[in-house]
Amino acid sequence: MTYTADQIAKFLNGTIEGDPNVSIHKLSKIESGEPGSLTFLANLLYIPYIYTTQASIVIVSKSFIPEQKITSTLIKVDNVYDAFARLLEIYDKAKFNKKGVSANAAVSETSTIGNEVYIGDFTVISDNAVVGHNVKIFPQVFIGPNVNIGDDTIIYPGVKILNDSVIGKNCIIHAGVIIGGDGFGFAPQEDSNYRKVAQIGNVIIEDNVEIGSNTTIDRATLGSTIIRRGVKLDNLIQVAHNVEIGENTVIAAQTGISGSTRIGKNCMLGGQVGIVGHITIADNVKIGAQSGISSSIRKPGQIVIGTPAIDASVFKKSAVYFKNLNQLADDIQKLKKKIFE
Amino acid sequence: MTYTADQIAKFLNGTIEGDPNVSIHKLSKIESGEPGSLTFLANLLYIPYIYTTQASIVIVSKSFIPEQKITSTLIKVDNVYDAFARLLEIYDKAKFNKKGVSANAAVSETSTIGNEVYIGDFTVISDNAVVGHNVKIFPQVFIGPNVNIGDDTIIYPGVKILNDSVIGKNCIIHAGVIIGGDGFGFAPQEDSNYRKVAQIGNVIIEDNVEIGSNTTIDRATLGSTIIRRGVKLDNLIQVAHNVEIGENTVIAAQTGISGSTRIGKNCMLGGQVGIVGHITIADNVKIGAQSGISSSIRKPGQIVIGTPAIDASVFKKSAVYFKNLNQLADDIQKLKKKIFE
Amino acid sequence: MTYTADQIAKFLNGTIEGDPNVSIHKLSKIESGEPGSLTFLANLLYIPYIYTTQASIVIVSKSFIPEQKITSTLIKVDNVYDAFARLLEIYDKAKFNKKGVSANAAVSETSTIGNEVYIGDFTVISDNAVVGHNVKIFPQVFIGPNVNIGDDTIIYPGVKILNDSVIGKNCIIHAGVIIGGDGFGFAPQEDSNYRKVAQIGNVIIEDNVEIGSNTTIDRATLGSTIIRRGVKLDNLIQVAHNVEIGENTVIAAQTGISGSTRIGKNCMLGGQVGIVGHITIADNVKIGAQSGISSSIRKPGQIVIGTPAIDASVFKKSAVYFKNLNQLADDIQKLKKKIFE
Repeated sequence: MTYTADQIAKFLNGTIEGDPNVSIHKLSKIESGEPGSLTFLANLLYIPYIYTTQASIVIVSKSFIPEQKITSTLIKVDNVYDAFARLLEIYDKAKFNKKGVSANAAVSETSTIGNEVYIGDFTVISDNAVVGHNVKIFPQVFIGPNVNIGDDTIIYPGVKILNDSVIGKNCIIHAGVIIGGDGFGFAPQEDSNYRKVAQIGNVIIEDNVEIGSNTTIDRATLGSTIIRRGVKLDNLIQVAHNVEIGENTVIAAQTGISGSTRIGKNCMLGGQVGIVGHITIADNVKIGAQSGISSSIRKPGQIVIGTPAIDASVFKKSAVYFKNLNQLADDIQKLKKKIFE
Repeated sequence: MTYTADQIAKFLNGTIEGDPNVSIHKLSKIESGEPGSLTFLANLLYIPYIYTTQASIVIVSKSFIPEQKITSTLIKVDNVYDAFARLLEIYDKAKFNKKGVSANAAVSETSTIGNEVYIGDFTVISDNAVVGHNVKIFPQVFIGPNVNIGDDTIIYPGVKILNDSVIGKNCIIHAGVIIGGDGFGFAPQEDSNYRKVAQIGNVIIEDNVEIGSNTTIDRATLGSTIIRRGVKLDNLIQVAHNVEIGENTVIAAQTGISGSTRIGKNCMLGGQVGIVGHITIADNVKIGAQSGISSSIRKPGQIVIGTPAIDASVFKKSAVYFKNLNQLADDIQKLKKKIFE
Repeated sequence: MTYTADQIAKFLNGTIEGDPNVSIHKLSKIESGEPGSLTFLANLLYIPYIYTTQASIVIVSKSFIPEQKITSTLIKVDNVYDAFARLLEIYDKAKFNKKGVSANAAVSETSTIGNEVYIGDFTVISDNAVVGHNVKIFPQVFIGPNVNIGDDTIIYPGVKILNDSVIGKNCIIHAGVIIGGDGFGFAPQEDSNYRKVAQIGNVIIEDNVEIGSNTTIDRATLGSTIIRRGVKLDNLIQVAHNVEIGENTVIAAQTGISGSTRIGKNCMLGGQVGIVGHITIADNVKIGAQSGISSSIRKPGQIVIGTPAIDASVFKKSAVYFKNLNQLADDIQKLKKKIFE
């Protein structure tokens, strides 16, 4: 498929500077753009590349004024990143159009399968599972008994969704994700052994949630572990039993959230953060990477970092002094010598 | 299935206050209990809910004395948490009773399969593997050559157990766990390349061990990586080659243990702890979440936290001063000015 | 298979002390060596065991001079560790010789499969994938559309390699690894929702790379996430979109590298390190376990540790003072009292 600058400018509601008839068939990075490709300039640091790129078309901001001659055709738009994201999406969707149920899949007769569904090789759909319309389930996926998958959701290879889980509409679940494993609950016995506490709750994932590769979300002991609509989870994250994560909260890779903790809406958590159990994080809170959160954060919008986490502005100062603790200690020694000796 | 208060009280060896004939068919949380459900009161913070819950039966401690009228039937027991755990377990076990070997599984003719076994779709049982009695192996599991699985063990979907691993009786291995991958061993060469050190040992997991989703346990270079009886591992944990973890030690999610380290019995490790290789941790040690352990802990029962980890009581004080380093540094400046200028 | 000391000495270019006709059929650790086994002495701490081991043959350094009688036959070599690694490798390779394509695999007619290949049960080879000669792909692996796998590469059970990924020659990819999942990219919208940024790039893994169990490597937004030749990644590592890791860099378990960061050649990263996005790490840098790297490291060969990471020598001193912050604060109090009161 090829598109002309004119077609793309109309689609993006942008204006053209240069040849409207030049055509492209792929997308590229500005620093390595080849003829026949389209790229974009969003970050000011990349401005020098616009004068040297071989890309046929570059999407730029309406406010961009070249200081040298540019050979590429420019398409000027209000929001470059957004415009490019829309093109990426179209490009991405055009690539995948598989439909139908593989003869190599094991689909229970008691399951319910929607229209226009794709179910790949060696995937298992268990008893009483419900798969919505236009759902795409790649090979080697396990959908357990009584699981419900909403319309338009995509489930990548090797995902395991255990019994009674509920997945919303328009979710994307990446390869290797485990949903609905038992929560980590044990009652200590007098003989130092532990007795398993059975985990009979489930996991509920609302609409428009994306979950990164090999992330694990445990089922509740009782009730539900809940991921609210619009949440985005990166790879290798741990979500323990009975956790609730509020709408549109974004969490980076390798973060772990302990049991029964509630995280608010619109929060942003860096990577490798650890959060203890049974606490509450307010809405709009930002938590720096690798922080350790050992008590509730009640103030909406607070920015914290460190282990134990403190206000980010305080942490930055203290980190500088930590680096110079040697010097502080020397100063104290000198003072003691002067005063007490 | 429904049960009366009378039946449940007899099973738990408890005493009834209220209607012995009221019946329940499910379990619930006290704050959201509906008629027809049974719940429990163990945590004192939840006492207010007992006066408003709609649950038909509430399990309470023998020492609990209501201060208001309660509509639910009470069953009084010695240990509430334990009693409820027993009910959860019965409820949980009643749900799963699959048996037989799927026609879609690939079971080697040279393997040995016990009685009353379940082997799910697309599972592979390799040459010379031995699967004990009453073992349940879910779909898409890989059991490698010469692997031995003890009686009554449950293996969830997608688990991969590589050649020569030994799994004990009554273990639970959650989805996505990898047992017996190669240890991380490389010999540096003069040309900056690394030569792989072949890993020809195995993994031994003793009885009553539970392993959380997507956790990885590497095989030994020589000899065995050993997880002793009763150990409980949470999700996404890394256990390197030749590690040994002592009886009934409990480890929270995302902790990593480097090669050849030995951890004692009855230890408790928080989440995201990192432990270097070739050290020893004594019995009954407690390690706080996110700690970094860079040398052996020889004192049984010690409680440590921090990176590098120090005694927990010292860490707590130092963490407070870290937050106020700014103030300490200011004080020193003032003193210096007063004394030396 | 059994081998005599004479055969092994010739293979290793070593010299014999003791009976050249003694034979072995397995490898062992020196502290638990049995008759009929071969072991090695590389670490000086293990010297005492050489006088008590039952192993029939021990490989030792040319410089080793016994202080007591030894019953085992010694084979003296220049580099003990290297010699033993070579024996381990031979032993390891002798164990695995599967070939052929399982009748239970789903191999696309449009894929290209090399000679002497093994493809296990329930593995999927998608359209237009290319599998090189002598490649071994274990059961339950997913090879996506247009993926290219180089000669002699081994792919363990359950690995998922998504569309357009390129894997080099002689790589080892351990069980549960996910290659080519979408990068974590979202454009914030005015209504607090996020719009997914489609990820249309790929992953390129060069020759001689080893990747540990359940590690995840995301595809680039545009262009490629690149793992250069000779890189060794441990288990449960996160590599985000558009990252590049230089030749022969070694990274321990559970480390995470954020988007678009470039890591140099011959670096060594400890476990649980976190690195922010869009930075550069110079060649030969060493980063201590659990460090947090929040800005570029420009000096080749620097050794850093801590969060935020500082020079390792400074960190060690500051960590000692951190432990004694209590004492420093007391000293300041005493000084203030003496001076200002």
